[in-house]
Amino acid sequence: MIKFDNDYNHGAHPAILKALEDTNDNCYTGYGLDEWCEKAADDIHKLIKCPDAHVHFLVGGTQMNAIAMEAMLHAFQSVISADTGHIAVHESGAIENTGHKVHVMPSVDGKITAEQVRENASYYIENDLKEHMTQPRAVYLSYPTEFGTLYSKKELEDIAAVCKEYKLFLYIDGARMGYGLGSKDCDLTLADITELADAYYIGGTKCGALFGEAFVTTHPMIQENFRNYMKMNGALLAKGWLLGLQFHTLLEGGENSLYFTINAAAVKQAERIQAALREAGVEEYIKSQSNQVFIRAERKLVEALQKEYVIELDHWLDDDYALVRLCTSWSTDDKDVDRIIEVIKSC
Amino acid sequence: MIKFDNDYNHGAHPAILKALEDTNDNCYTGYGLDEWCEKAADDIHKLIKCPDAHVHFLVGGTQMNAIAMEAMLHAFQSVISADTGHIAVHESGAIENTGHKVHVMPSVDGKITAEQVRENASYYIENDLKEHMTQPRAVYLSYPTEFGTLYSKKELEDIAAVCKEYKLFLYIDGARMGYGLGSKDCDLTLADITELADAYYIGGTKCGALFGEAFVTTHPMIQENFRNYMKMNGALLAKGWLLGLQFHTLLEGGENSLYFTINAAAVKQAERIQAALREAGVEEYIKSQSNQVFIRAERKLVEALQKEYVIELDHWLDDDYALVRLCTSWSTDDKDVDRIIEVIKSC
Amino acid sequence: MIKFDNDYNHGAHPAILKALEDTNDNCYTGYGLDEWCEKAADDIHKLIKCPDAHVHFLVGGTQMNAIAMEAMLHAFQSVISADTGHIAVHESGAIENTGHKVHVMPSVDGKITAEQVRENASYYIENDLKEHMTQPRAVYLSYPTEFGTLYSKKELEDIAAVCKEYKLFLYIDGARMGYGLGSKDCDLTLADITELADAYYIGGTKCGALFGEAFVTTHPMIQENFRNYMKMNGALLAKGWLLGLQFHTLLEGGENSLYFTINAAAVKQAERIQAALREAGVEEYIKSQSNQVFIRAERKLVEALQKEYVIELDHWLDDDYALVRLCTSWSTDDKDVDRIIEVIKSC
Amino acid sequence: MIKFDNDYNHGAHPAILKALEDTNDNCYTGYGLDEWCEKAADDIHKLIKCPDAHVHFLVGGTQMNAIAMEAMLHAFQSVISADTGHIAVHESGAIENTGHKVHVMPSVDGKITAEQVRENASYYIENDLKEHMTQPRAVYLSYPTEFGTLYSKKELEDIAAVCKEYKLFLYIDGARMGYGLGSKDCDLTLADITELADAYYIGGTKCGALFGEAFVTTHPMIQENFRNYMKMNGALLAKGWLLGLQFHTLLEGGENSLYFTINAAAVKQAERIQAALREAGVEEYIKSQSNQVFIRAERKLVEALQKEYVIELDHWLDDDYALVRLCTSWSTDDKDVDRIIEVIKSC
Repeated sequence: MIKFDNDYNHGAHPAILKALEDTNDNCYTGYGLDEWCEKAADDIHKLIKCPDAHVHFLVGGTQMNAIAMEAMLHAFQSVISADTGHIAVHESGAIENTGHKVHVMPSVDGKITAEQVRENASYYIENDLKEHMTQPRAVYLSYPTEFGTLYSKKELEDIAAVCKEYKLFLYIDGARMGYGLGSKDCDLTLADITELADAYYIGGTKCGALFGEAFVTTHPMIQENFRNYMKMNGALLAKGWLLGLQFHTLLEGGENSLYFTINAAAVKQAERIQAALREAGVEEYIKSQSNQVFIRAERKLVEALQKEYVIELDHWLDDDYALVRLCTSWSTDDKDVDRIIEVIKSC
Repeated sequence: MIKFDNDYNHGAHPAILKALEDTNDNCYTGYGLDEWCEKAADDIHKLIKCPDAHVHFLVGGTQMNAIAMEAMLHAFQSVISADTGHIAVHESGAIENTGHKVHVMPSVDGKITAEQVRENASYYIENDLKEHMTQPRAVYLSYPTEFGTLYSKKELEDIAAVCKEYKLFLYIDGARMGYGLGSKDCDLTLADITELADAYYIGGTKCGALFGEAFVTTHPMIQENFRNYMKMNGALLAKGWLLGLQFHTLLEGGENSLYFTINAAAVKQAERIQAALREAGVEEYIKSQSNQVFIRAERKLVEALQKEYVIELDHWLDDDYALVRLCTSWSTDDKDVDRIIEVIKSC
Repeated sequence: MIKFDNDYNHGAHPAILKALEDTNDNCYTGYGLDEWCEKAADDIHKLIKCPDAHVHFLVGGTQMNAIAMEAMLHAFQSVISADTGHIAVHESGAIENTGHKVHVMPSVDGKITAEQVRENASYYIENDLKEHMTQPRAVYLSYPTEFGTLYSKKELEDIAAVCKEYKLFLYIDGARMGYGLGSKDCDLTLADITELADAYYIGGTKCGALFGEAFVTTHPMIQENFRNYMKMNGALLAKGWLLGLQFHTLLEGGENSLYFTINAAAVKQAERIQAALREAGVEEYIKSQSNQVFIRAERKLVEALQKEYVIELDHWLDDDYALVRLCTSWSTDDKDVDRIIEVIKSC
Repeated sequence: MIKFDNDYNHGAHPAILKALEDTNDNCYTGYGLDEWCEKAADDIHKLIKCPDAHVHFLVGGTQMNAIAMEAMLHAFQSVISADTGHIAVHESGAIENTGHKVHVMPSVDGKITAEQVRENASYYIENDLKEHMTQPRAVYLSYPTEFGTLYSKKELEDIAAVCKEYKLFLYIDGARMGYGLGSKDCDLTLADITELADAYYIGGTKCGALFGEAFVTTHPMIQENFRNYMKMNGALLAKGWLLGLQFHTLLEGGENSLYFTINAAAVKQAERIQAALREAGVEEYIKSQSNQVFIRAERKLVEALQKEYVIELDHWLDDDYALVRLCTSWSTDDKDVDRIIEVIKSC
């Protein structure tokens, strides 16, 4: 059964498997101190136009977020996040487990604003009782958000300015970075993101790799002992070259690399599905800007889709309509999309 | 300058100091294994009609709350609290520092409802993604609340029933317990609270003692290693008898003891102030039920009060009105209240 | 350059890569809830003759050890380990980071004895000041140890008996389990280990897999919420089937499976090297029982080896002799060993 | 029964109780922001000749040590301690509970050497695998040690020099500081200690106060957010003035203050007991330098002492001899000592 329920239901782009095979007879130094990690870091350095950034390769997003926060925050400090942020809802309390509070802000379409950050930060940091309160020291954003929406360059600049003013680290969860950068609504480059954020990651698991995420940080304090934090959290992969090799395969060639082309293609497929839905009069739940399409689907459509596909039925909004997520990915092909469009049209 | 800003600005009831003096030449076993702690535990056992409850004496409320949560919760578990709960706002992230998330609910007059607890608990505990989420395992209430209001017996029973249904520990922060029990609106006894809650504490610091809080728990799992949790958190006072002695002085005689009389008197004084305010047309911010009076005070009144008293000016609500808290305590006497009533009348 | 310095310097057994390729076009449910994880768990259930054991697949050993300890231990509890145990030296304080003390015992050849465990446990658990002390609740062993040695069945039974007596969980780090089971000195089966230990893992990363470790536990308390602990620690791999698929490839067929044959072959290669060294008069530092050979190597030999191989030079014992580790692995072939034997002979 | 088993079995010096009584009718600002804390900090500033040191008052030693370590150490960092150090044995894993490893060194008479610190620090900090290891960042000493012995100025200077070299914070647990400074073997002043250590505390609980310890730090990084760390750990006493008042009572007048006279007197009493023991041919277990006397006591002596006194019988060294601790304190008077000397002589 074809799965449109998420973007991590397939293995890897064939080029990744080929690279693994081509190098399988070689032997490498462990723990990320190998030539492939170096090459992949070089690829990233060129892409972000920042040769001094530190690059580390980790296995998954939850471990990445928790380690980044542990490296950024002192024990009494906290992080600001949208109420829909992954760290706020779907990481089983990983951030709190490292000892830190997540200050949750109401979000619109998965996004928070510079004004909200300012209000929250100033409330805590300028409070007479500040010694009785956690102190915000980081802002967590996701790009694209959990709802597939994008911060504009202007929005991100505004948030970054508030962060600077209140000495907050700006951290961006880029689990789906490829789909963000591949959107026609994206007015940011990775170089822009590097300039605005103190740390972020370029997602691999959902964007063509078998597994793996590339962490990038330009801030000396975060850079300093990051590998110790990784090891302490079981995130220093023994065969680190497996990660470097995958990211080199994806990112060699910069903005013309596999990473950019396959993920942009996935967004295009999402747009095709969206267009078909619009035509069929199905209501968008949130205006999609990347590879995730959220709709208010009538029961009939839900049932028709479920007959052929695995979809994410988030919950029934009322007796007749459900919130449904359809996800494309780098592995989605024309044929799959042609057929789902037919199903949509037939409802 | 007389302080009406809080209820911990005075030393101790004279009987406490006398007891300290009377015993100062004796020597005692340390760490709470002394005769006074035993006597005080006996006093409490009688009062709550539950001889099997475990009683421990700690120094302060923040350490109490954090230790109780550490003893109740596994690493991935969390606690539900009102957004105004002390653990949610004024403990510098103590609960998160022990690794646990605080699920914050909107409150009305400092209180949350059984229905809110059910909604939150069921959302997390029955969720398909429950393995990706913290799991609520405790509910934190304060009695009286941070706004001086009281849960009725019925409200508490309803919450306790939901807790039983969802296997949540019910924990009550009784920093101001004496003022709650001393209110004319209180329809609960300590015995009732013991029956409904799995653990709670009887506040001393704010209710007549020099310092100290008495923790009570009837749940075997919380009882089991509580002294280890206390020691690990630096809360096993070397001279533990100082705490036992104070609580014995306060609680000997049960409901006729000092603890009940001095704190009920404080609530009476708050009622007198409240009556004067009402007469003077000053608007209550929240209807006080214990020793804290919250008002919408006009600038003129604020200034008049500030000339003679230290008051808690929470913040200016607008150009003309401020949210002001006036606190009485066991140390408040008639003369002080007579005079503040005059000031109020003169505005 | 050929690497004899460790056993994680190669990719994966070709059968693993083939399996990844064969399934790359399929799509799967995430987070370990897929058919391959089920099949691999079945393989393990048969092998260990214990259908009720819970099986989980994780990415690496450090995360495995820390999560297991977090699931086993209450905040004030601790774990007993050899001073050479991986958790005691090479995990950047991962166990302490989860809040737990590691009680370190002096070891002989990487092993500790039942008597040592009894002494340590009884000292803490029966101490008058036990409430002032961490309380041991788990024993950490590695099989094989970090020095390639093996506990005999009798030794393990004795330790397990002490664990039962003092209510300690027995946990075995099996990062190199395949090389232990493949040793001619091994008098244990995985079924024996399952009976004796409360939890352990079957190492994949060092034993033929691309990456991954299989956790096995028979204890209800550890089983209960293990996936929450995994998620909270970023160890619930999104594409979990990648782990299940690898372990199914390795373990299908039980004791005749790939896992057993390729790792036993590696131990044979180590024996050949050992024999050559013995013949050449090189002193063993520790009598190897699996795939790691530790020698007191004269400078001349060190230099000869380093010319052709990457070896692990632990440190110089004196002016003339160094402690050197030579590791074989499932990827070591006859030719490599033939040649290193020649080098040894020539010194 | 008179207690010679420890130095925290009595209330407070009468001057402390008097001060509490004299101020009991006043009201004060909470959380250490009061006039008495200011006065006491001034007393300390003069005494240590360092007006820029930050001074905070806490309730007990275990909370002090854990908070100091939490403020000094990043998550992956650790602290070096003697194996007999209080943090290593008697705090129920408080340091590990905040996430940090305690590197334990063998001690002689409760002391470790600069050379040991250098060896340990250099091993970890200069290790090729340092990213896989906790990194020492602090040294914990006690003055006097848990065995009543004293570091000489030279020994402390040597340790401080190694700390500087390896960027380790030097922290001194001064639970019994008064007895150290009151010893005839002491060649240090508090001003010296302030110069050599980055942080330390002046013990009150065991040295004349009812309860309380005074933390002193000269290091900007430790100073920065210390009150947040205190609050987060439940160590910001609501009625903070109770602590300031006690320390002002003890320390007003500097080296001629109560603190110095009453504690020096206690050491004199210990010397008298020691002399009597020596005369009676009883073997010292460790040569006492302050208020604790450790002896190898024959059964007959043990029994004679136990008939009239509570003593600390640590354990039986063999069939006939026990390790016994006799403690004097500020509350020990001539009469008690006269009588115990008689008992000793009579054996």
